[in-house]
Amino acid sequence: MPQTRETTSPPEDGGSPPTPARTRNPERTRARILAAALRDFSARGINGARVDAIAHRAGTNKRMLYYYFGSKDGLFRAVLRHRLTERTPTAAARDRTGAGRIANLQDRMADSRDYVRLLMWEALERSDRAAIENEDLRRQVFDEWAAEIEAAQRAGTIPSDLDARQLVLSELALAIFPFAFPQLTRLVTDRSPAHPDFQAERRTFLERLGAHLTRSGE
Amino acid sequence: MPQTRETTSPPEDGGSPPTPARTRNPERTRARILAAALRDFSARGINGARVDAIAHRAGTNKRMLYYYFGSKDGLFRAVLRHRLTERTPTAAARDRTGAGRIANLQDRMADSRDYVRLLMWEALERSDRAAIENEDLRRQVFDEWAAEIEAAQRAGTIPSDLDARQLVLSELALAIFPFAFPQLTRLVTDRSPAHPDFQAERRTFLERLGAHLTRSGE
Repeated sequence: MPQTRETTSPPEDGGSPPTPARTRNPERTRARILAAALRDFSARGINGARVDAIAHRAGTNKRMLYYYFGSKDGLFRAVLRHRLTERTPTAAARDRTGAGRIANLQDRMADSRDYVRLLMWEALERSDRAAIENEDLRRQVFDEWAAEIEAAQRAGTIPSDLDARQLVLSELALAIFPFAFPQLTRLVTDRSPAHPDFQAERRTFLERLGAHLTRSGE
Repeated sequence: MPQTRETTSPPEDGGSPPTPARTRNPERTRARILAAALRDFSARGINGARVDAIAHRAGTNKRMLYYYFGSKDGLFRAVLRHRLTERTPTAAARDRTGAGRIANLQDRMADSRDYVRLLMWEALERSDRAAIENEDLRRQVFDEWAAEIEAAQRAGTIPSDLDARQLVLSELALAIFPFAFPQLTRLVTDRSPAHPDFQAERRTFLERLGAHLTRSGE
């Protein structure tokens, strides 16, 4: 058992984690819980997911899960935060003003269908709440994105008659919608959004649509 | 009791509807059940909605509901079908090729937030099924819409480099997404999609976006 000398390990009085060798590595336990939580929240919703099932899947127990995340809401916040901090560096590196920007955003979303479902559950189960989880962190991503579009509008490469924040919302819509509503995608295009042919056809479409909404290099 | 001489009324042996005078009018009972079902499906999901609660809200009972709709799935199909047959005439009358087409579609969706939520539940709870409820009826709406766009492309008023079905899917995305994801709308624009200011600002944006994707009259 190479990992028994952790000094930051959580208290282990009382609760008996199923596999001690694993749970003694807090970072790996946290990561396993977050992965299991994303899967379970995505499948059943935030209300429908069960903390003990998530803990079991992650090879730990409910007591350890609460030790790390405090509550089911805390776990949901951590899943969102993990996703944001994991993805933000590559989001900032992404070209958010070129003609290929919407097609590239779709490619990111195609790999994130669990996350898209999580956002849908959040919308259905949480939209009656005044507070939005991790609001500051999430707002920051969109603020920076809108600022880049505004700079491109001043530089003349994106049409300046289009409100920058409405354009951000619209590019999200174009990239996320087919994965969020697979039944509508099938009804309209006769293909599942998970199918490579659909994604290739939509990529071509979004590149052309992006070109209609960009004035660079022509 | 002016409605007691119905000849097509459902059997009333055994079950005791709470308000007989009402349930003797089958069309009104059906309509009340459909309205209660849309509300309950929209709030709790298709799996989460309870048939007895829907019947109670509609002023009838579970036995009568099953008499009219057969099952919870049958009720869900009927809610979708009711919506489609109720809206299809105005959908066909809507201008689906002019510069204002996306803004007008948003106005329709702003009045249909229960329906948008229903589509989200359908996506989350039913997308693992091979069959789509009311598939033929729903496909027909999109087929006609795509055909109108193709005609406009032949006439030169909509850019012909954009695949017509992908454009239909994209216009749906632009009109539905803000209502489907109110938390993202708030994070991006600082406003609730239910707010008139948001809808007015987005209407202006969509009119301009529509103009970028239309070549008519200029």
